[in-house]
Amino acid sequence: MQTVSVNLGARTYPIHIGESLLTDSAQLSALLVPLIQGRQVAVFTNDTVARLYGQTVYDALKDYAVDVFTMADGEAFKNLDTYRAAMDFLMEKRHNRTTCLIALGGGVVGDLTGFVAATFQRGVDFVQLPTTLLAQVDSSVGGKTAVNHPLGKNMIGSFHQPKAVVIDPLVLKSLPAREYAAGLAEVVKYGVIADHNFLVRLEAQTQALNRRDSTLLGEVIKRSCEIKAEIVAKDEVETGVRALLNFGHTFGHALENLSGYGVWLHGEAVSVGMIMAARFSEELKLLENGQAERLQKCLDAVNLPTALDSPLSVDEMLGSMGMDKKAADGQLRFVVTSGFGQAEVIDSFSDQSLKRVLTEFFQG
Amino acid sequence: MQTVSVNLGARTYPIHIGESLLTDSAQLSALLVPLIQGRQVAVFTNDTVARLYGQTVYDALKDYAVDVFTMADGEAFKNLDTYRAAMDFLMEKRHNRTTCLIALGGGVVGDLTGFVAATFQRGVDFVQLPTTLLAQVDSSVGGKTAVNHPLGKNMIGSFHQPKAVVIDPLVLKSLPAREYAAGLAEVVKYGVIADHNFLVRLEAQTQALNRRDSTLLGEVIKRSCEIKAEIVAKDEVETGVRALLNFGHTFGHALENLSGYGVWLHGEAVSVGMIMAARFSEELKLLENGQAERLQKCLDAVNLPTALDSPLSVDEMLGSMGMDKKAADGQLRFVVTSGFGQAEVIDSFSDQSLKRVLTEFFQG
Repeated sequence: MQTVSVNLGARTYPIHIGESLLTDSAQLSALLVPLIQGRQVAVFTNDTVARLYGQTVYDALKDYAVDVFTMADGEAFKNLDTYRAAMDFLMEKRHNRTTCLIALGGGVVGDLTGFVAATFQRGVDFVQLPTTLLAQVDSSVGGKTAVNHPLGKNMIGSFHQPKAVVIDPLVLKSLPAREYAAGLAEVVKYGVIADHNFLVRLEAQTQALNRRDSTLLGEVIKRSCEIKAEIVAKDEVETGVRALLNFGHTFGHALENLSGYGVWLHGEAVSVGMIMAARFSEELKLLENGQAERLQKCLDAVNLPTALDSPLSVDEMLGSMGMDKKAADGQLRFVVTSGFGQAEVIDSFSDQSLKRVLTEFFQG
Repeated sequence: MQTVSVNLGARTYPIHIGESLLTDSAQLSALLVPLIQGRQVAVFTNDTVARLYGQTVYDALKDYAVDVFTMADGEAFKNLDTYRAAMDFLMEKRHNRTTCLIALGGGVVGDLTGFVAATFQRGVDFVQLPTTLLAQVDSSVGGKTAVNHPLGKNMIGSFHQPKAVVIDPLVLKSLPAREYAAGLAEVVKYGVIADHNFLVRLEAQTQALNRRDSTLLGEVIKRSCEIKAEIVAKDEVETGVRALLNFGHTFGHALENLSGYGVWLHGEAVSVGMIMAARFSEELKLLENGQAERLQKCLDAVNLPTALDSPLSVDEMLGSMGMDKKAADGQLRFVVTSGFGQAEVIDSFSDQSLKRVLTEFFQG
């Protein structure tokens, strides 16, 4: 087992990464038990994940009164209705401020559970047991919690750090191919924004990634968590450098919004969004020509979408991006890369260059 | 104008107290404008308050795009339905992370607005303009935000500090008598838990309090805010000393729960709850006999209820208190006073002594 620390003062917490942590209840119990204050615990999960790993978690928590909240799977259910149902559940089961919520699942389960934990009785403890690659390398790290609003993703939420994250790379063996690839989009992103060597390693090992080599995955998850943890430690509530993690996301969110929730997986939209962001970086003469194509090849090689099936309207894209929460009072901001391994935020650029990039992209 | 500072590091904020601050738009503007980051502002209020002070606030914000969210008045509307409507409102009006929410109203408006501010796009700025005595001396100070759940008051919420609080004691002239008295319950509480001299002053000046002498009120509000600010600064998220502010509240919340929302005003329930807490303190030999009666006289003199119209069931009271969020994993805790001017939390006592106090109280 390896551990990455997310250093946030009083809210510092560990990310434990190790094979079999979600199938070996004794190991899991040793990690969870010291974190639990009271006698009640609530496991938030969905049917698919519960069938695979639920028993390990319940066994690990056998000395506690465990209530299980099972939510429907999918981004469409990460909403205020499910949030309310979760609050009803905790109240009816008489949980109090010493409860601990355990998020067992992907990003949807983690984001919702985190927001419930952030706001149940003004904040209770929670632990993340992420079961998708995306959740392991991204959404479970850094304390962002949220549900969606019909007019925008993650528009309702807060910052609330977990007490710990426990990651078992072996669970990725059972992940559907699309979801697995979607997680790799964020992994590649870390290389692009923060570590060129890491990107080079990923480019060289796409085959091992595709066959889900668990040793490689352990390393890749660890490095991804380290990069994210370092950025989050510098800027817990996203007033500065944390925005760099949104590379590809302004475009990606717009794609998701225009297509309706559930058409794209988040990582798929980010994959296409990163290529748009790289092309935009080239258009602005920040990035050497040809690098966007290099990125596209890497994403292609790990089975991620890199183009749209049918073009979208440029105006609709611009409108959707204006609504994006990264827009600072009317001023659109973008994360661009000035060479792989580094990124920056820009808020001044010609509308024409943005339109040109979108138009060319939609024309293929 | 006088200012009390709530010292919370990076979240430090001022409470400005001054006559006419809610009728003089130039003065108000000078306080609000420096706090606003963007171009959009949302005023949260209700019809009654908007009619009295809305125009001053809109005039003070004339250089901004102001949207007004009017909510129904009353504790029954401090719920997830209104919360959702507020989120819909902000999304439809396209507010972003630079928005500033202005809570113009009593505790219901303040608590709901604060929770919306805490969770809209993971947290935006807000300012409190409290228009009831209870909100001025209690709910607007300290960053507790919440909505009610059908099974418990304030069960959904978070800690989110305002950027500033602006208090005009003159607005209390128009406050209904019951609401005014309800606010005095918390004022008296500050004397009981933290400042015996302040309590003595209040006891001596009940007539001036009852005629709402605005000079006296300015002082009383200031001292109340100082006491609360000092306690909050020591314990922002209620892990310790902040619990002392709940003197009378465990009993009071149970009374509110058993009667249904809206029967009692919060401060009225706290008034009765404080007498119960004082009698319990006497029963436990912490407080000299006769002090509960002294407290009752003071509360009587400012027109607060000090007894129940009809007795409740002791078992129902105990059950309701078990559900109270101050119960730490099954262990009931109470704030008691060991002499007026000081308070402490106890979690070990005989159930019999608690039952005896309740039984005697209900028998009158």
